Amino acid sequence: MSDLPPILRLGKNADVPVALYGARANRLSKLRSLGLPVPLAFGLSIPTVNAIATGQMPDKKALLEQFGKRAIVSVRSSPGQRAWGGPGTMLNVGLNDETHAQLRHRLGDAAANVLYCRFVQDFSVHVAKLDAEAFDGLSDAACGQPESLAAALAIYQAEMDEPFPQDPVLQLGHVLRSMARAWSGTTARILRQARGAPVDAGLGLIVQRMAIGLGSGESGAGVVQFVKPSTGESAVRGRYLPKGQGLDAMRAGQVASYIATDKRGTSLETTSPKTVAELRKFAEIARMGCHDVLRFEFTIEDGKTWLLDAAPANRSPRAAVQIAVDLALDGAISRKSALLRVEPQNLQQLLHPQIDPDAKAPIFVRGLAASPGAATGRIVFSAMAAQASAAREEACIMVRQETSPEDIRGMHVAKGVLTQRGGMNSHAALIARGHGLPCVVGASDITLNFKEKTMTAADGQVFIEGDIITVDGTNGVAMSGEVAMVRPDLTGAFATLMDWAREFCDIGIRANADTASDARMARSFGVDGIGLCRTEHMFFEEDRLTVMREMIFADDEADRRAALDRLLPMQRGDFVELFEIMQGLPVTIRLFDPPLHEFLPHSREAMQELAEAMDLPVSQVTARAEDLTEFNPMLGMRGVRLGILMPEIYDMQARAIFEATVLASQNGAPVVPEIMIPLVSAAREVELVKARLDAVAREVQREAGVDFTYRMGVMVETPRAALRSGELAANSAFLSFGTNDLTQMTYGLSRDDAGRFMSTYVNLGVFPEDPFHTLDLEGVGELLLLATERGRAANPDVVLSVCGEHGGDPTSIGFCRAAGFDYVSCSPFRVPIAYLAAAQSAVRGTNKQTEDLVVT
Amino acid sequence: MSDLPPILRLGKNADVPVALYGARANRLSKLRSLGLPVPLAFGLSIPTVNAIATGQMPDKKALLEQFGKRAIVSVRSSPGQRAWGGPGTMLNVGLNDETHAQLRHRLGDAAANVLYCRFVQDFSVHVAKLDAEAFDGLSDAACGQPESLAAALAIYQAEMDEPFPQDPVLQLGHVLRSMARAWSGTTARILRQARGAPVDAGLGLIVQRMAIGLGSGESGAGVVQFVKPSTGESAVRGRYLPKGQGLDAMRAGQVASYIATDKRGTSLETTSPKTVAELRKFAEIARMGCHDVLRFEFTIEDGKTWLLDAAPANRSPRAAVQIAVDLALDGAISRKSALLRVEPQNLQQLLHPQIDPDAKAPIFVRGLAASPGAATGRIVFSAMAAQASAAREEACIMVRQETSPEDIRGMHVAKGVLTQRGGMNSHAALIARGHGLPCVVGASDITLNFKEKTMTAADGQVFIEGDIITVDGTNGVAMSGEVAMVRPDLTGAFATLMDWAREFCDIGIRANADTASDARMARSFGVDGIGLCRTEHMFFEEDRLTVMREMIFADDEADRRAALDRLLPMQRGDFVELFEIMQGLPVTIRLFDPPLHEFLPHSREAMQELAEAMDLPVSQVTARAEDLTEFNPMLGMRGVRLGILMPEIYDMQARAIFEATVLASQNGAPVVPEIMIPLVSAAREVELVKARLDAVAREVQREAGVDFTYRMGVMVETPRAALRSGELAANSAFLSFGTNDLTQMTYGLSRDDAGRFMSTYVNLGVFPEDPFHTLDLEGVGELLLLATERGRAANPDVVLSVCGEHGGDPTSIGFCRAAGFDYVSCSPFRVPIAYLAAAQSAVRGTNKQTEDLVVT
Repeated sequence: MSDLPPILRLGKNADVPVALYGARANRLSKLRSLGLPVPLAFGLSIPTVNAIATGQMPDKKALLEQFGKRAIVSVRSSPGQRAWGGPGTMLNVGLNDETHAQLRHRLGDAAANVLYCRFVQDFSVHVAKLDAEAFDGLSDAACGQPESLAAALAIYQAEMDEPFPQDPVLQLGHVLRSMARAWSGTTARILRQARGAPVDAGLGLIVQRMAIGLGSGESGAGVVQFVKPSTGESAVRGRYLPKGQGLDAMRAGQVASYIATDKRGTSLETTSPKTVAELRKFAEIARMGCHDVLRFEFTIEDGKTWLLDAAPANRSPRAAVQIAVDLALDGAISRKSALLRVEPQNLQQLLHPQIDPDAKAPIFVRGLAASPGAATGRIVFSAMAAQASAAREEACIMVRQETSPEDIRGMHVAKGVLTQRGGMNSHAALIARGHGLPCVVGASDITLNFKEKTMTAADGQVFIEGDIITVDGTNGVAMSGEVAMVRPDLTGAFATLMDWAREFCDIGIRANADTASDARMARSFGVDGIGLCRTEHMFFEEDRLTVMREMIFADDEADRRAALDRLLPMQRGDFVELFEIMQGLPVTIRLFDPPLHEFLPHSREAMQELAEAMDLPVSQVTARAEDLTEFNPMLGMRGVRLGILMPEIYDMQARAIFEATVLASQNGAPVVPEIMIPLVSAAREVELVKARLDAVAREVQREAGVDFTYRMGVMVETPRAALRSGELAANSAFLSFGTNDLTQMTYGLSRDDAGRFMSTYVNLGVFPEDPFHTLDLEGVGELLLLATERGRAANPDVVLSVCGEHGGDPTSIGFCRAAGFDYVSCSPFRVPIAYLAAAQSAVRGTNKQTEDLVVT
Repeated sequence: MSDLPPILRLGKNADVPVALYGARANRLSKLRSLGLPVPLAFGLSIPTVNAIATGQMPDKKALLEQFGKRAIVSVRSSPGQRAWGGPGTMLNVGLNDETHAQLRHRLGDAAANVLYCRFVQDFSVHVAKLDAEAFDGLSDAACGQPESLAAALAIYQAEMDEPFPQDPVLQLGHVLRSMARAWSGTTARILRQARGAPVDAGLGLIVQRMAIGLGSGESGAGVVQFVKPSTGESAVRGRYLPKGQGLDAMRAGQVASYIATDKRGTSLETTSPKTVAELRKFAEIARMGCHDVLRFEFTIEDGKTWLLDAAPANRSPRAAVQIAVDLALDGAISRKSALLRVEPQNLQQLLHPQIDPDAKAPIFVRGLAASPGAATGRIVFSAMAAQASAAREEACIMVRQETSPEDIRGMHVAKGVLTQRGGMNSHAALIARGHGLPCVVGASDITLNFKEKTMTAADGQVFIEGDIITVDGTNGVAMSGEVAMVRPDLTGAFATLMDWAREFCDIGIRANADTASDARMARSFGVDGIGLCRTEHMFFEEDRLTVMREMIFADDEADRRAALDRLLPMQRGDFVELFEIMQGLPVTIRLFDPPLHEFLPHSREAMQELAEAMDLPVSQVTARAEDLTEFNPMLGMRGVRLGILMPEIYDMQARAIFEATVLASQNGAPVVPEIMIPLVSAAREVELVKARLDAVAREVQREAGVDFTYRMGVMVETPRAALRSGELAANSAFLSFGTNDLTQMTYGLSRDDAGRFMSTYVNLGVFPEDPFHTLDLEGVGELLLLATERGRAANPDVVLSVCGEHGGDPTSIGFCRAAGFDYVSCSPFRVPIAYLAAAQSAVRGTNKQTEDLVVT
């Protein structure tokens, strides 16, 4: 790079280094080298611009002379990445009384006046830093008048105490210095750092010959791209302003015409079809040459088309997939590159219906975007109403203060959820994300009256049960009535991209699936198995919930066994179904880990219902519920602790799993179930459970006269289990890290309670990210690495994995690859994200997150 | 040891190796070598006994011949430690028709019959393994008759189908094999391992000439020691049975006489003062020679006193202190040895009144021994009644279902606490231990009726408010009425032992003290400072609790500040008092770490009270309480999280601390307060708080015109803080490990909820110990070591310590010494334990826990 000049003529080199001249200089040079009609332009290198900011000017006169006599030029910023911002483009530099006179000849008085007048204003405001209000009333329309131009010049002179500078060299110098200094200002620096720019990010500048769209022939300026932003399909999109300049066509209030004829009004296609055809040709050349679909800023100067600037075309996440796949199929980029073009997190939006970006959205409350996607339905205020609604085959949206397990059956049939309370990790949010249900939580501005069955918005709007609303879980808003949506499409480009992702993905991806429908969806995404089946989630359906509660409420072992005997066939049926759907792929079943409080009846009605089912006085049910209430349920009698204190529960589950293994194996591929023990903190816990599992296995084998094997593993979710992984791995086939709970315990922070301060914490930078979303590499990550090392040392064959929400987080997946985990497991709706993130990590061959994902 | 024979004549060597012949052989040999009248005895080595168990007999004939013709001998077990048990002593081996005839001449018919008859029975039951019931009716009294002896011999012959063995060599062989095999039985092995014996612990045996206390002259057998078991003071204690043998005098139902005349009935002192004087002389010789006070088993054979056996004298914990100190003062042992003679845990019993072991105790319920000591008082069922009782200067015992913070003011004035629910780590147990208040929790067999103000015991006994009861928190029982007690005495031997402990203790000991009375007590034990002052505990007094709640309930910062302004002078006063009491010693003040739920009003009345105080509708108070309720308070908005979200709280506390520093420094030594930040999980939390602390410090310095310094440190109680200790230590003066919470989070186990299964877990061996009592070295301990290493690496000057219950646990203290911590901090009542444990650890120069603490 050292032999590149401080000021480079663009187009000579196809590949101008971005690090030295910025991304725009690179792109314009590439376009010129492709033979596209980009006006003559020079790039000032970043060191040159740095020098300008400190007062060391390059030879402006020599530069201007390159453009010929009386040239008019524009100055554009060229930062390292477009997202980092930079000062706005300065047009018409070089205009003075002399060039103005010349332009009057060429363009006529009015157009020449407008240009000069506008330049005087722009220069005054952006370079001389005069107050914009001083020029109030000098609109473009007015500027056509010679008096207006005179007024603008007079204002300048009055304010600056000197006449408007006539020397183009002087003008250019002022403009360059002003733009260089704007970049080094504090606000600009903070803003671009917030967008990911490094501390020492520099700015390049581009000086370009002006193409003036105000000539008497076909003249004007516009913006065009040849893909639809919402889908990425081929289409003509853009606006054009005859007799316009720069981005005039895009200005608010500007009556511009469209490029294509599919919209009302005149269009460039009707007035100059040749131009559009030419632009289309340019776009195709640029697409292949720049390896991306671009959006052009163009100007027509007396019938001649100039491309002044170009940037990646606007695109929705869905369009990004389409564009990337098309580019790869056309050979413009490799498949690897295509995979890097899509932000994994954005795939979520493809999996769910989304609000149409063009739709009118009568938003009545804003909350947290807890689970993506949009849904429309009638308001219901209870699980029972939701079920009734479902019975009538009416779509419904469940509205609650917050949700509890009793609401889960309602959530299963609702189309969306809106809660007044709760954070990103509240019960509603977790269940909704697990089920791919659009969900908005923490909509604290609504008032709920369950007695009257009304919801009142902050603006006084009152909704009653049965009213239609739409929730947008992608953006965290709720709207009244039905709102137009874009339906998900998992075929076509999406399916192709997924195929490629699976091809490059070098870590196993499994799904967390508790139900047959979860499992089917996971299988449709081509997973390697089920990494986490939470058996307690199989009990949230109405009939089972009551039996489950009878089991929990049983006073002694006999009563408990009676309830367990009724649960056994249900569980066995569940497992047979799962095994059959997964057709021989591994299924990891986690033994019962009930947050007991989630199964306790909370309302008076639920207590009554249970009392009836158990034939007990309500007072006794209430007392027992109180008995079972824990101070810190998260740290209470959960998981293996329950399994050890009441071993008959795990016995029942083991029997259900083994009997299902026998049944499912008769119908198809032999099943090797994986049984996972939750919330372990000591090796002896595993020994005790394993002994009983083995005993049940032998019993079932004897009864069925069939031989089968199973694999036993440990869910590592307490810091102590992580520390003792060596001991645990020695007797386990696998260790699966439950990073949700591990994060809670490592931080001493409950997901359920963190909502009250997490956003403040992230805003203050106390935590760089919510550790429940992105794996905390410094703390939890260290425990994982340490556990991995100890586990592998004790048992080189032990299978290591992560299950939980982090399993679907791109950054965390990169970490898991780097740590050498065998697989990650995440909710079915995050499986595509996991595949893409893992593939990207593999393609990069590193774990670095800094690579520009859009422009290669 | 290899040149020591399989069978050793005791008394030739003063120091017979315990590892080869067992502890008893060692002691008897020592006593013989001191010239004391121990009958001729031989020790069989452990390898010899092992061989016997597998059928390889030594030369029994040669052995018997050492005792002369027609000798009668006893066989005693000699395990490595007395506590490990071992088969019972076999007396009268060698008795047969021939020796029986001889004895009839010497002792008369009746005595000879008794001895032979008894031997036949003992041999039948313990060696030949006949059913003891076969000999029903053959009591000692009956055995005097010749028919009885004949019957016994006949029974043996009938059952065994052979006559009673007449050959003494054969008899001895059977006895030796029987005892050797008893030792290797499964039950015996499990029992001794439970008492701490190693897996391969062996048994030695002793064959000793019988001294027969049934002669016609002064004859009999007894047990004697010359210290009072309850206090260790000099006194004669023991029982004696004229014409008795072995431990006859101690048998249940046996009408024996006492040794000393201070008891009713005849005594040895009256019948044979010479014997008692002789025994006393022997005891003194043994005390100096064996370096301990012994209890003798003795026999008088026709006026001649024989010492058959000896063991450390019975002693209460208090007596152990007295005995050890006296031994050291008399030069029998070193001070170091004296320190090792007392079990640190047992010191607790010296610090509190204890139920007199001789008192009758009408126990009406058993529960958990939650906090040691005993107290008598009138039953009160509420904090208010407790305060009323205190106002009347009546001692009271608070009886509750379980306690909450509202009860703390009641607990402050009560003499003891009894709760129906809760475990060793319940609120009641923790508060009681912290305050040295006798407490029994989990007394689930009582029924409470707060409306009627009654408590009903399982046996139907009904107590009403005002009834007098006694709680014994040392043994976990409650008794009706007043029960005699032994008062604590912290002067004398205890004070001496403490002086020595402090002399050898090489780690700092501080106290956790929240109040002036805590601080005074700590100072009386000579602590190095206060290691943990929990400021939230300063708010449990009635008037403050309400202000505190106003602060917590404040809706906005303004209201909160108003409440804080009222709290400021209270806090400042607290700190001034603490600083003055501690006279320049360091005081570590932990900033507010409220378990918010503990401050929430729970009852309807409390809600009403608060509503009145805050001039708010009850409904609003209830709603706010609901708002503040957390799913997992332990993992919620606690500690520094609250400090960051509502910085005005820490601002107030910092101001109170700094203003108190200025005030207290004027009156005495300059104070350098230590401020500790709780529940840290990220370094940035510390930075944010530190910045504000510094600002407040500057403000106070400016206002007061005085300069002062302070030290800021971090309470490491989340696993993440432990992992990030390097980062934390870099900017901290100290790190103090809060092992209570660290244990909770490392295990994922709430102290409050663990009670439901901890005992089962420990019984099943899932956890070797309750990790809240004894530091979990494998998990939590590893985190501590890792944190220590990282902390010291980042900041070699950082002061490291442990605060919390483990700070007072002997095993944990050994660990802290080994880990190089600067100090441990524990509740004032555990300070003496900490000093002694640390001194022992230092004296041993190692961390091994296996050393025999009683016999050197």
